[in-house]
Amino acid sequence: MNTPWWLRPCKSPDRDAQKAAAERQQQLTKPAGSLGQLETLAIQLAGLQGRVKPRVDQLWIALFAGDHGVVAEGVSAYPQAVTGQMLHNFVSGGAAISVLARQLGAQLDVVDLGTVTPMLNLAGVRHLQLGAGTANFATGPAMTDAQGLKALQAGRDSVLRAREQGSELFIGGEMGIGNTASASAVASALLECPAALLTGPGTGLDAAGVSHKARVIEQALDFHAGLLDDPLQTLFRLGGFEIAALAGAYVACAQEGVVALVDGFICTVAAMVAVRLNPECRPWLVFSHRGAEHGHRHVLESLEAAPLLDLGLRLGEGSGAALAVPLLRLACDLHGHMATFAEAAVADRPA
Amino acid sequence: MNTPWWLRPCKSPDRDAQKAAAERQQQLTKPAGSLGQLETLAIQLAGLQGRVKPRVDQLWIALFAGDHGVVAEGVSAYPQAVTGQMLHNFVSGGAAISVLARQLGAQLDVVDLGTVTPMLNLAGVRHLQLGAGTANFATGPAMTDAQGLKALQAGRDSVLRAREQGSELFIGGEMGIGNTASASAVASALLECPAALLTGPGTGLDAAGVSHKARVIEQALDFHAGLLDDPLQTLFRLGGFEIAALAGAYVACAQEGVVALVDGFICTVAAMVAVRLNPECRPWLVFSHRGAEHGHRHVLESLEAAPLLDLGLRLGEGSGAALAVPLLRLACDLHGHMATFAEAAVADRPA
Repeated sequence: MNTPWWLRPCKSPDRDAQKAAAERQQQLTKPAGSLGQLETLAIQLAGLQGRVKPRVDQLWIALFAGDHGVVAEGVSAYPQAVTGQMLHNFVSGGAAISVLARQLGAQLDVVDLGTVTPMLNLAGVRHLQLGAGTANFATGPAMTDAQGLKALQAGRDSVLRAREQGSELFIGGEMGIGNTASASAVASALLECPAALLTGPGTGLDAAGVSHKARVIEQALDFHAGLLDDPLQTLFRLGGFEIAALAGAYVACAQEGVVALVDGFICTVAAMVAVRLNPECRPWLVFSHRGAEHGHRHVLESLEAAPLLDLGLRLGEGSGAALAVPLLRLACDLHGHMATFAEAAVADRPA
Repeated sequence: MNTPWWLRPCKSPDRDAQKAAAERQQQLTKPAGSLGQLETLAIQLAGLQGRVKPRVDQLWIALFAGDHGVVAEGVSAYPQAVTGQMLHNFVSGGAAISVLARQLGAQLDVVDLGTVTPMLNLAGVRHLQLGAGTANFATGPAMTDAQGLKALQAGRDSVLRAREQGSELFIGGEMGIGNTASASAVASALLECPAALLTGPGTGLDAAGVSHKARVIEQALDFHAGLLDDPLQTLFRLGGFEIAALAGAYVACAQEGVVALVDGFICTVAAMVAVRLNPECRPWLVFSHRGAEHGHRHVLESLEAAPLLDLGLRLGEGSGAALAVPLLRLACDLHGHMATFAEAAVADRPA
């Protein structure tokens, strides 16, 4: 029997390039360590890209959309049909991620994995239609194994397209009414902690709405009890098409040698699934921000992630990751273009 | 007698533009509030620039250099002559701020207010040479009133040049061996708190060095006791030429209607001086980051500042502010270019 693709080995970071980059950092005309996280980042990127002076000019943003049958339980502030409406907004340029992609010179790859809106056919969107959104995970598995495998593969396919285009950085974004409920459920199952700890307002529930959402998730976890002992089944029973696509994409990034910049709560939960599926993918994940959604902090800590931004964001779409791109680019510029003490004839501190 | 220029009124933010920007934010295709601090920022910039859709494309970076006689007390990890050497690096393009200015398309205005290196004459640097660095504030005033007034004016002059060039955002940077000691002394005096609370390693002192530095500052505060009861005298007795220039620049920004983006610890102390000199300037100050230097947190809190970044930076030169510029620009892009719910035919949440 063949090994499933997501269990195959990931690339190893290039320790020589990483070491040479760390040495270069020590020689640049600034007090050692004074660029803080940007120094660590440049060194990490050097190791991942296998070059002393890394670059993240070529940027790929994959936007995975899919909505969630669990919305029937009253867990979202917006109606499920908004997912389909937003797909139109993504390709016509009015959504946050569309504006950011344009400003950053990114390629935007919009993938419709399946929403409640039937027969959508929008120019510029890849319609995969794995189903009319997921099934309601409060009363059954969110997706079949066949749907789940297709969603994982859809994430991988986007990474293969990105690699083919020479992309130096992969951002996965998501859009899907109901997906904070799904992400909270997956995270609660994987971290074995109470749903209330990882459940927040999503697009804008009030306190009563958040309590209700946590109860729905807790009951669903009871419903699926005993069937959540591996990450793949947890993903298929509680996750979403877009969350599965993201998890597949993160594993594929590590296998293909493309750095992945992880967005907010939902993406971070997908990253946790990816790391559970294939722990070797962890070094390839750079975490962009700590968002406002309750639970994001916990999931980040479980991954020992040190995100770059903390701006109270809770939009999704990959927007937080996109906002961090200039920091990655400037970290590369500083690392690559600053003069050394020798080049500038500046006295370094006495040893 | 004429009112000194720094006491003259500052411009008032435009409440109508701010209100219209806040209303626009509510109509954009995203859950209300989901862009966190970027929403607040766009609304604040709209008020300051008096237009519903603010822009920060035209960027001015003033780099004020001056070094510090107090280095004689052994309070710095680097020799004082490095200030002059770095001036050369700033204009030849190898310093961090030179790289950042180039990438951001900023005008870099390098002003030498006076360093220990005599007769420097570098193309691209404005040499004002107010003195061979400040005097040692452990044993006397750091500068004369005449020097202090010229330094304040030098800051203002850079803002006037920026305004003349149509700059939409002013960054003040600093370079000066010894200036964390000076900034800690000024902040301790203004906040009336022990020097140890506000003293850190600067460019890289070890723990013993930090203790020694705090003792030097504490003794200097005793030496000047009774003569620090107004912010101007505190600035002149304990500050530096570049710190005075920054304070003058921040007041002038508010008078001329140019948004100021404040960098790290030293700039934030200068901003505190500016606010003490003329409280009306406070709304014009946007705080870019929380740095690694001990004491920055306290000074930011005293100004009720909510900085954008927290990356462990401690370089100065305006580099932390420059790194935050893309966030300001993207906040403006999102605010100005996203579609409204009506434009995109997306259902807003039920009222």
